[in-house]
This record gives sequence, C-alpha cells and structure tokens, in this order.
Amino acid sequence: MKFHYPNGKKYVPKKEESIGIKKEKKWSYGNRGMTLEEDINETNEYYLKNGIASIHKKPTPVQIVQVDYPKRSAAVIKEAYFKQASTTDYNGVYKGRYIDFEAKETQNPTSFPLQNFHEHQVKHMENIIQQKGICFVLLRFSITEEIFLLEAIHLLTFWKRMKDGGRKSITKEEIEINGHPISLGYNPRIDYIKKIDYLYNLR
Amino acid sequence: MKFHYPNGKKYVPKKEESIGIKKEKKWSYGNRGMTLEEDINETNEYYLKNGIASIHKKPTPVQIVQVDYPKRSAAVIKEAYFKQASTTDYNGVYKGRYIDFEAKETQNPTSFPLQNFHEHQVKHMENIIQQKGICFVLLRFSITEEIFLLEAIHLLTFWKRMKDGGRKSITKEEIEINGHPISLGYNPRIDYIKKIDYLYNLR
Repeated sequence: MKFHYPNGKKYVPKKEESIGIKKEKKWSYGNRGMTLEEDINETNEYYLKNGIASIHKKPTPVQIVQVDYPKRSAAVIKEAYFKQASTTDYNGVYKGRYIDFEAKETQNPTSFPLQNFHEHQVKHMENIIQQKGICFVLLRFSITEEIFLLEAIHLLTFWKRMKDGGRKSITKEEIEINGHPISLGYNPRIDYIKKIDYLYNLR
Repeated sequence: MKFHYPNGKKYVPKKEESIGIKKEKKWSYGNRGMTLEEDINETNEYYLKNGIASIHKKPTPVQIVQVDYPKRSAAVIKEAYFKQASTTDYNGVYKGRYIDFEAKETQNPTSFPLQNFHEHQVKHMENIIQQKGICFVLLRFSITEEIFLLEAIHLLTFWKRMKDGGRKSITKEEIEINGHPISLGYNPRIDYIKKIDYLYNLR
C-alpha cells in the first residue's frame, strides 16, 4: 500500500522553523510556495491571540512504520509515509459554532480545477453540513492574487456536476457569483471570520 | 531542538493497520495498549456512519526533517520527530456545536494524575470554553475499567489548584462528584454524545 502526498506536490521540509530561525516575512506574492497556508496560519494566530476564534490546522497525517529510540535522546522516526487526509485541513470554534474549511490555490486564471479536492474531503464536507457545521473553502487565484470564500454547499453542487459528466472545474465567474471575495489585509491577513459573521449573522 | 513523544510512552507502530490486516477485536480490557483510543475511534465511526456526529482524532503531529523521493514510488520520510500537540486530540461537530476533548487513562486506582495533561492543552481548553465550545476530558481508570466524562471547566479548577501549590491529581471522589460516568456499551462503545445531549440539553 503506497501513500502519495495529498496535494501531489513535492514536500519541502520547513527546516528554518524547526531550528527556530524565523524567516523574514515575504510580503510579495512572487514566491508562491506556502503563502496561502502561511497567511491562514497567521490569521488563525491573530484570532487566537485576540480571543476571536480558536481555529487550527490539523497536522499532516503520516503513517509511521519504523521508530528508533537512541539512548538519552528523542525518538527518531526512520520510516514513514504521507497519508491522504480524511478530512479538511482546518477546523475549530467561533462563538460556539463549528468551523471547518479547506484552502487551495490555482495558477489557472479563469477557473478552479476540482482535482484540488478529494472524494473523501467532499464527503467530509457533506457530513459537516449535515451536522450544521459552518463549512467552506478558501480559493486563491495565484496570478491575480484574489481570494474567495465559497461555502461548501456550492462546492458540492459543482462537484456533483462533474460527477454527472460535466466540467471538471468551477469557472471564475461561478465563483464570483456564488462566493465572497476576501481582500488581503495586514493583520489579520485573510479575515474570513468577518465573512462568516456576515453570512451566518453571528455578529 | 528535540521533540519528545507527547505522552512519554514508547511509540508502537500500528503495522497491522497499515498493511490492511484487521486484528481480532479484543473485548477484554486485559490488554491495555491502545484500548481507550480504539474504543473512542470506533465510537466516532459509529457516530459518523449513523449521521449522529462528525468527530475525528487529529493526526499525531510530526516534525519532518528529511524526505526521500524514490523514482516510481511514494515519498519516504527518512527522519522525523514527534512534536507535542498544541491542542487536544479529538474535535468535531454535533448539531452545529463544536466538540473538543482529550482522552486519558491511569492505572492509579484512587486518583487521576494531572501530569497526563500539558500546559498548552489546558490553555487550549480555556480558549475553547471562551469560544463557547463544548470541551471535556474522558478519564479512564484502567483497573476498575470506569470511564468518566469531566467537563473542562472542572479540570481547569483542579489544574489551578495544582498551580497554586495544591495536589497534583484529582481524587476519584472529586471525579465522581463533578464528572459523569459512562458505562461501556457494545455499539457505540463509549457513548459520550448521550452525556453531552443531557448536559447541554441538545436533544
């Protein structure tokens, strides 16, 4: 049984972080590496520190096969594989409500490919909606640097269209009609809670 | 920077699971390995399959240092370390409400040592309560096979007592007074949602 890294991208270990060196923040979006994730993490830190919401990224799921226990030092994982996540990446709580979302970006200027999502993630979103959780995706168009919040219920509709033989992506126009643009801020960077407030009347 | 495995126990890889062999379920609690976790996972599966709740265990957080990319096969993590979790292990949604908990067991027959919890987990519980999430711990006394649901607000009180120089554990009597016993069932095994229904009047 082989595990492929969920997003199909080569894994770049965050060594700087692990040895405590803080990289200078790149405000330019020229370097597109992990920018969306970093911005969301910073946003979540802001929410947490300011008592606004408690939302966290789940750890990357890993299947551990072999672990060494050197004397007088920490256990070392010597063999492990990336597993596909069975849920979305982010969840937490805001004003008692359950918040759940996934964030993805595309280089495509005119549509968002649905291959960015996996069947089990979509199934998970269905479950969250059934349980009356607040579930959405944050979609980023890298080239134009636009970010949209699209409620999961709409993603499910486009997913179903694909399953029924329709197009394998959501057009940008459809996202503009059904979604909600989020402009990039300084702090918080991506203020998605503000949209949630508005959409669910939680203010 | 070294990472120690959060619960201080030697890690036992679940090889049977990874290669798809299903172990015969041990109904006896004689083998105390991962029983509480297994029972909770089974309970959560039951809730999910029956549309009752969507609650998941978070993946074990791992700091990845080195990854190999052999041709024509999956990426292999060759060096990684266990990180301490910054949150609790389980969270999800039930009737729109955010659910968050940690599960721990002790061999101590008369009290529950607070060293089972970490400062940052307790801080996380405070955040969840502040955000009006439903937060609790499932405590299991291995020897008597008793399980209690204790709301986080009580755990915080006992934690504070310890910080103020008081005892480093919660007596069993205190747990009996403040907590709620959950009897082991067949399916679901540990029906904690039923208690939540009762405590938060969600029926």
